[in-house]
Amino acid sequence: MNRRWAWEDMPPGSVIPLGPKTVTADEIVEFASEFDPQPFHLDEAAGKASILGGLSASGWHTCSMMMRMMCDAFLLDSTSQGAPGVDFVNWRKPVLAGDTLEGTVTVTERRRSRSRSDLGFLTSVATLHNQNGETVLELKNTGMFLLRDPEAARDA
Amino acid sequence: MNRRWAWEDMPPGSVIPLGPKTVTADEIVEFASEFDPQPFHLDEAAGKASILGGLSASGWHTCSMMMRMMCDAFLLDSTSQGAPGVDFVNWRKPVLAGDTLEGTVTVTERRRSRSRSDLGFLTSVATLHNQNGETVLELKNTGMFLLRDPEAARDA
Repeated sequence: MNRRWAWEDMPPGSVIPLGPKTVTADEIVEFASEFDPQPFHLDEAAGKASILGGLSASGWHTCSMMMRMMCDAFLLDSTSQGAPGVDFVNWRKPVLAGDTLEGTVTVTERRRSRSRSDLGFLTSVATLHNQNGETVLELKNTGMFLLRDPEAARDA
Repeated sequence: MNRRWAWEDMPPGSVIPLGPKTVTADEIVEFASEFDPQPFHLDEAAGKASILGGLSASGWHTCSMMMRMMCDAFLLDSTSQGAPGVDFVNWRKPVLAGDTLEGTVTVTERRRSRSRSDLGFLTSVATLHNQNGETVLELKNTGMFLLRDPEAARDA
């Protein structure tokens, strides 16, 4: 196993930078057209007239962009085996066309699988902020990763 | 306001059917290529070799498909004003190429906004199952909806 990031390599307290990623109006409309065609995700005027204040990305689009940032930051060079779910998502501020997002993912907990000695769980909190320093997304989730050396890590 | 679904129209206990939606291999790969390019979301062989057991949709893709089902079922003909977040997501089983998903959204709680008399919150639990009756997704979230008649609904 020659991946850089195995379960052992991300103890609680690890902080990994995410982004930056600038989201365009075209990207917002393309995602929303397929998955979330509410007017404020499709049209600038409808966005301005809404509580969101402008053409704004679907919250699921923001989560998906965060996922891509996590892939590019470490997951694609990791032993990731997917994830059983998400603990919570907070869409704290609208993500508007032209916003540039960046942030961090911080590992908060880890545990071994009870049923598979080569597998472990990592819980992390990801946050993204925009170019004005406003937090737009907070998300806690738990992912599964293979261990690099299950024998040596037995007591971790 | 001539939308079918305003805040008043979805009391706790309301159940709205979602889907069906069949997800293709091409859709899985297209979403994953942009947002979650882990091997088990891009390639059948890599999926079969993984804990997921086949070419499987990104969990964020499954959430996004659920969002589209909610749009088609009621949100596009509602007073929806977006959502502040998601309480939890459980990806209970992999969603594999060719799976047909359907389910329900059930309203569990509602409350008025303290700061805006024309706005209310609806909390709901959505579940999707596949063609074998296996639950693949459980998701709880809270959305904001305009009231049809804030005066009449004052004590709701």
